[in-house]
Amino acid sequence: MNIEVICTGDEVLTGKIVNSNYAFIAQKLEDYGLSVQSGLTVGDDREALLEAFLKAGERADAVIVNGGLGPTVDDLSQEVAAQAAGVELVLHESWLYRMERFFQSRGRTMPPNNRKQAMLPEGAEMLDNPIGTACGFAVGIGKATFFFTPGVPRELFRMLDEQILPRLLGSAGDLGVIVLRRFHSFGLGESHVDQLLSGLEEMDPDGTVKLGFRAHYPQLETKLVCHAPNHDVAREKLEPIEAEVYRRIGNFILAVDDETHESVVRGLIEAGGGSLAVIEDITGGRVAQRLSALPGAERFFVNGTVALTAEAKRNDFGAEDGDFDWATAPDEAVALRLATAVRERAGSSHGLAVIGRYDGEPRGRAGHVSGTINYALAAPGGVVSRQAELTGSRDWVSLGAAEMGLDVLRRHLKGLPIDERIDFEKTDSPPSGRAG
Amino acid sequence: MNIEVICTGDEVLTGKIVNSNYAFIAQKLEDYGLSVQSGLTVGDDREALLEAFLKAGERADAVIVNGGLGPTVDDLSQEVAAQAAGVELVLHESWLYRMERFFQSRGRTMPPNNRKQAMLPEGAEMLDNPIGTACGFAVGIGKATFFFTPGVPRELFRMLDEQILPRLLGSAGDLGVIVLRRFHSFGLGESHVDQLLSGLEEMDPDGTVKLGFRAHYPQLETKLVCHAPNHDVAREKLEPIEAEVYRRIGNFILAVDDETHESVVRGLIEAGGGSLAVIEDITGGRVAQRLSALPGAERFFVNGTVALTAEAKRNDFGAEDGDFDWATAPDEAVALRLATAVRERAGSSHGLAVIGRYDGEPRGRAGHVSGTINYALAAPGGVVSRQAELTGSRDWVSLGAAEMGLDVLRRHLKGLPIDERIDFEKTDSPPSGRAG
Repeated sequence: MNIEVICTGDEVLTGKIVNSNYAFIAQKLEDYGLSVQSGLTVGDDREALLEAFLKAGERADAVIVNGGLGPTVDDLSQEVAAQAAGVELVLHESWLYRMERFFQSRGRTMPPNNRKQAMLPEGAEMLDNPIGTACGFAVGIGKATFFFTPGVPRELFRMLDEQILPRLLGSAGDLGVIVLRRFHSFGLGESHVDQLLSGLEEMDPDGTVKLGFRAHYPQLETKLVCHAPNHDVAREKLEPIEAEVYRRIGNFILAVDDETHESVVRGLIEAGGGSLAVIEDITGGRVAQRLSALPGAERFFVNGTVALTAEAKRNDFGAEDGDFDWATAPDEAVALRLATAVRERAGSSHGLAVIGRYDGEPRGRAGHVSGTINYALAAPGGVVSRQAELTGSRDWVSLGAAEMGLDVLRRHLKGLPIDERIDFEKTDSPPSGRAG
Repeated sequence: MNIEVICTGDEVLTGKIVNSNYAFIAQKLEDYGLSVQSGLTVGDDREALLEAFLKAGERADAVIVNGGLGPTVDDLSQEVAAQAAGVELVLHESWLYRMERFFQSRGRTMPPNNRKQAMLPEGAEMLDNPIGTACGFAVGIGKATFFFTPGVPRELFRMLDEQILPRLLGSAGDLGVIVLRRFHSFGLGESHVDQLLSGLEEMDPDGTVKLGFRAHYPQLETKLVCHAPNHDVAREKLEPIEAEVYRRIGNFILAVDDETHESVVRGLIEAGGGSLAVIEDITGGRVAQRLSALPGAERFFVNGTVALTAEAKRNDFGAEDGDFDWATAPDEAVALRLATAVRERAGSSHGLAVIGRYDGEPRGRAGHVSGTINYALAAPGGVVSRQAELTGSRDWVSLGAAEMGLDVLRRHLKGLPIDERIDFEKTDSPPSGRAG
């Protein structure tokens, strides 16, 4: 099936906003085995839109149009769609009623210009938008079915899931179900995981299970998609393959589907009735920020400290002169001492230290640096630590270090080895691990 | 001039990566008074690329193509460009020499497949890439001049600035200079600033100075672009207009051109020989992270603390029971106490507290919340504070609160009022300010 995407709007055309809706649509279709042939961006311009719709209607089987369904005069999608389809705009009474109720329920009267949002090309099929005033619609233009969607991301996402994908998959001749499983990992590169999972697709003799990847450093997403006649069959096919994924790369999987690394860590800590304090330097507060962005973070995340200098680290923990020589101690010892100290001071069950330094000046045309990072975790059973050397831009190193800090925590809480070598480490630094 | 942009590559087409290069190209052209008519994304597919090039060559005056100049087999831009232009690929000797030297200087031999990057369509003009192995090139296809650019962002950015813009502006019949000034502000919305700056363009009777905006919450960028025969004339024209911008919205301008809010704050603190400690909750470490990401941050940023609960705030500062009733004290008093305490403990010249709470449950279909944020700054001259109520998603409130924390600091360091009302505040909460 030839699918094209057309994104509309001056804000996107002029680059005022980065078009992440396009990537979302394309990825969502990929997840379900459908491919986008081309993506076009045009402005809020009647002539340009009309030409784009007519041309796409000549080439494609399906076209997803994003944006231009709002109540203002520069929202032209319905109007130009009707023109391209050679029909009139007609009032969609039931959507008008929905909009009026929508405003009433918020104690407001619907402004007159919102009426425009209920005007659809004659013969178009309305696509429900349960969370906004812009309904979508499907209409034929040329040989293609056009799906018009709102520009507001969460409205688009829901309409794509609930209205458009079922129709596309139906029209793709596949009336079964498609089940998607996503495994988020840290520490293995895409080609490495691809190699580790070789032969996996062949475990399903019918060839209905497909493996895919999406790398977004520091995490990698591994996807399994299964087309099947129904959910029971899909589950049956996926179960042994999922088990095999865990057998091969299980230690590196930090979350599945909609979980995040930080939500998994939170779950593990709360399950044990514990709490956490963190001290960091090279990550500059990234670990604290990811944890504290969780709703209800205050229930488990007791304290975060960003202490860049040796002096700040000493001051923070009220060490007496001579207690501990912060300036000359090896970083690993500092990390161990700090993890213990944050835990004690915060009265938490766990204390994590992510302490690093950049080694030397930026090198090469990309200005890459190396960073040596020491992780230490103080827990009820004792203290553990590991070291890793990461290379890249400062931002890259800091992002990786924060992810690895959460990973050390997750691995320890799950009883997994915290010192497994990861692909992002520099090859000339041997992995190190220590439990004390 | 009709300009189109074509972005190539399966990673962009499938949405594996969000296409921020497109937005960069379009914004850069906008900055210099040029507009993109449409943006097209196609995959690494010979047929699709050829069709895209030929069609664009029929319509446009200039086409910028991004990506596909690499050394691997799926990099097709040169090849398809030659085909579309109806010419052969020929070896560009001088670029081959540059590449060989490039590898030599890194102690490596050029792999044979890089030779492909020096094959350009016959008659094409080479566009220099001083920081990579993919040279760009300009070639005529149909009635348009095509500019081919590398996909690596920093290589694209530089080629656009140094090679393509001068050629586009030259071919646009403008052989003078274009000077761009950017003012970054916080606290005023785009339409408000537009209104405050009304009549500004008319200050230049020749109409060569244009005003533009780019909103990226929480900041707004106000742009002045001046076309002039040379830099002296541009400076002369811009000077009085820039002064007028400062007269009207100067207090809200936090940085200009390539400066950032945090770099300006750092400069102000370091200019006074000072240093800073921060305690935050609702911003979850955002303030600390922005400050600590500055190179050399350890020279002025002494300590950052994320303390979500009242208990953590009390523990952090070792208050005795009864010293201060954190649980029942008004938030403003807590913020003042914390700012003073972080300053004392860190031994820094300045202590900033950004303390907030969400008021009630998320409301409405967007799940909006209100947050009341208390800012307090302890400085050598005393303690100041203000309060603000922000509304939006949790992320939106937290982003705004962090920006406002830096703004309180900047304003105080510059001797500006810290309690000027901002547009993002809820209208039913009166602005408050206090100096103590």
